[in-house]
Amino acid sequence: MTAERFAALWGSLSPIGRAGGDGGYLRHSWTDTDMVCREWFVEEALDRDLEVEVDRNGNLWAWWGSPDGEGAVVTGSHLDSVPHGGGYDGPLGVVSGLLAVDRLRERGVTPSRPVAVVVFTEEEGARFGVPCLGSRLLTGAFDPARALRLRDRDGIYLAEAMGKAGLDVDALGPDPQRLARIGAFVELHVEQGRALDVLDAPVGVASGIWPHGRYRLDFSGEGNHAGTTRMHDRHDPMLTLAHTVLAADEAARTHGAHATVGRVDVAPNATNAIAARASAWLDARAADSDTLDRLVTAIQQRAEERARYDGTRVTLEAESVTAEVAFAGDVSRLAALELGAPVLPTGAGHDAGVLSKHVDTGMLFVRNPTGISHAPQESASDADCAVGVEKLTDLLARLCR
Amino acid sequence: MTAERFAALWGSLSPIGRAGGDGGYLRHSWTDTDMVCREWFVEEALDRDLEVEVDRNGNLWAWWGSPDGEGAVVTGSHLDSVPHGGGYDGPLGVVSGLLAVDRLRERGVTPSRPVAVVVFTEEEGARFGVPCLGSRLLTGAFDPARALRLRDRDGIYLAEAMGKAGLDVDALGPDPQRLARIGAFVELHVEQGRALDVLDAPVGVASGIWPHGRYRLDFSGEGNHAGTTRMHDRHDPMLTLAHTVLAADEAARTHGAHATVGRVDVAPNATNAIAARASAWLDARAADSDTLDRLVTAIQQRAEERARYDGTRVTLEAESVTAEVAFAGDVSRLAALELGAPVLPTGAGHDAGVLSKHVDTGMLFVRNPTGISHAPQESASDADCAVGVEKLTDLLARLCR
Repeated sequence: MTAERFAALWGSLSPIGRAGGDGGYLRHSWTDTDMVCREWFVEEALDRDLEVEVDRNGNLWAWWGSPDGEGAVVTGSHLDSVPHGGGYDGPLGVVSGLLAVDRLRERGVTPSRPVAVVVFTEEEGARFGVPCLGSRLLTGAFDPARALRLRDRDGIYLAEAMGKAGLDVDALGPDPQRLARIGAFVELHVEQGRALDVLDAPVGVASGIWPHGRYRLDFSGEGNHAGTTRMHDRHDPMLTLAHTVLAADEAARTHGAHATVGRVDVAPNATNAIAARASAWLDARAADSDTLDRLVTAIQQRAEERARYDGTRVTLEAESVTAEVAFAGDVSRLAALELGAPVLPTGAGHDAGVLSKHVDTGMLFVRNPTGISHAPQESASDADCAVGVEKLTDLLARLCR
Repeated sequence: MTAERFAALWGSLSPIGRAGGDGGYLRHSWTDTDMVCREWFVEEALDRDLEVEVDRNGNLWAWWGSPDGEGAVVTGSHLDSVPHGGGYDGPLGVVSGLLAVDRLRERGVTPSRPVAVVVFTEEEGARFGVPCLGSRLLTGAFDPARALRLRDRDGIYLAEAMGKAGLDVDALGPDPQRLARIGAFVELHVEQGRALDVLDAPVGVASGIWPHGRYRLDFSGEGNHAGTTRMHDRHDPMLTLAHTVLAADEAARTHGAHATVGRVDVAPNATNAIAARASAWLDARAADSDTLDRLVTAIQQRAEERARYDGTRVTLEAESVTAEVAFAGDVSRLAALELGAPVLPTGAGHDAGVLSKHVDTGMLFVRNPTGISHAPQESASDADCAVGVEKLTDLLARLCR
């Protein structure tokens, strides 16, 4: 695989959904942009004589060999993005999967089992709030009845968005037969940190995924006039929120963990009105579940202390919590042994983490020189991506023989 | 004026623009709701045989006597609201003005000069960001070319919104002849604090308005993945923002002033992304301009210090700063002497403050038992409002003879 050849296929996808001046992407699931991305995938799969199907949860599968065969070797990732996210998180695994099929054929590999490239839907949870929704529904890790009630920020139901795209939303839910036919899953992903850059390695192998959770904090106080309300008469929930943002950062540092408040919502959000209510979403991750629990408890305690001081109220609710994932099966061992690539953990959730509870699963990372992800500066060189395709091809060749 | 009679006219306006379950109002200028409020005013004015005109800046005038006469006695306020604001801030002065005309006639007052009730547009600045826009344009305190470039949060230009309502936006701008014909202006307003409640007085007279300003703080950092970016690699503008929110509160308390951050905007505002940018709007008020300057400087310094610590950047820009207003002319002296009402300052800006630089101006306040304003809990009893109408009538009767 040459860098130029990688760049050719990459360049056919990269203009879709680029939003505004910052070079970031708006590829939220089931939007018009997402539908164009999905059409792009279907066309590329058909050009390769792969058989395309949409599963009951809206995930796309492109098959080399029979979709009904046993022990399938599956690779892929997702095409949706966070708002103004980078272009590599997700799409790199899909493009690399298609190119790996090309390379397997060029190498004359005759798979003894089916090979597929998969596109999972709503991996980021950026539109409906639940990350890895497509793979969670497939594996039964998320209740389809609850999924149908999910709404985006404009109030549109997932059921409506998927129905508009032609899906039979009554069929949403676990797909154990499909899952049982998968023998191995490999997800290639851009690295979301700088470990490979520091190690000067183009490709790495994942050891596991940190446990992580999303928590919603709701603050309430007393809306009032900003100009006329005396300072000691105030019950301003923005102060409690601000204190909690700083407390989360401090607690993460003292716990050797990660904590972020990147999303807030303030009401009425007017310059000359003291806020009546505010919400903040906490993203917390740690190397083990105990540390994660202690981290979130510490943040909650400091939020509650400050709420007492401010005369406001705060509640914390877990929206989703994902346990630690260890990629410890044959796929990962094979990858670590055969590819000669460094092994590293990650703080990011992935469909591979969801599948790992049911299927022998591994992950490959491609170097990201900026270390930045979920932002337009996310990057990978064409040369490194081409190495990633070759390493993925090596691994798939071993697995499908 | 009986409480019942006040309640009857009040009840014909109060259902318009009530938003959702909290009892607050969404009456943003030039929206459909605002147009219904304006129609309500025109009908009430015509029912009273008042001559209605819309001035070049979209303010509404209802005349008893000739609009071209000299030394007019004008009363009124505004009908627009902050998002989910209370119902009294603005409308109370308009309703009281109409009822005061009724009472003057019932008392057999024959004005020796024209009397008018005015409705100023976009007093809150809640839609286009500039408070007292209608009165500022009228008096030449705001550049009409700049006004035409103002946009709301949906990107709609003021010019478009006013043009749609039938205004000739090319005519926007100062109206010195109209201003020169006004001999006195009185604005009656719900109190936006609890001073009258503490004094057990239904009505008060304003001594002046604190100097106040709106400032925009823009924070920028480095957007990145919330799960994978190490804490010490971060440049998170949310931390700088949070610190500044707390610093503003602390600085206001130590300076004996008011400071509020009630509006923020975060990008990309996603749960699993460290923010790349954030903005916060600071509302700051103090008893004198020196204190206001020192307050804002102190907040800016603390924001900049924290930005250096976080590796982020922050800029502060004044969006509007209003100097101290002293209501020290004949109208105010008369009100204080004749009405037997307590005299008090206020931290809130008003069209009366804008007009006071050109016209002999005074303000009356009506007791607000909650002290809350810019929120649904804002209130005034029908009985107090009826007293307000009588006091306003007393004052207008003295002024128009």
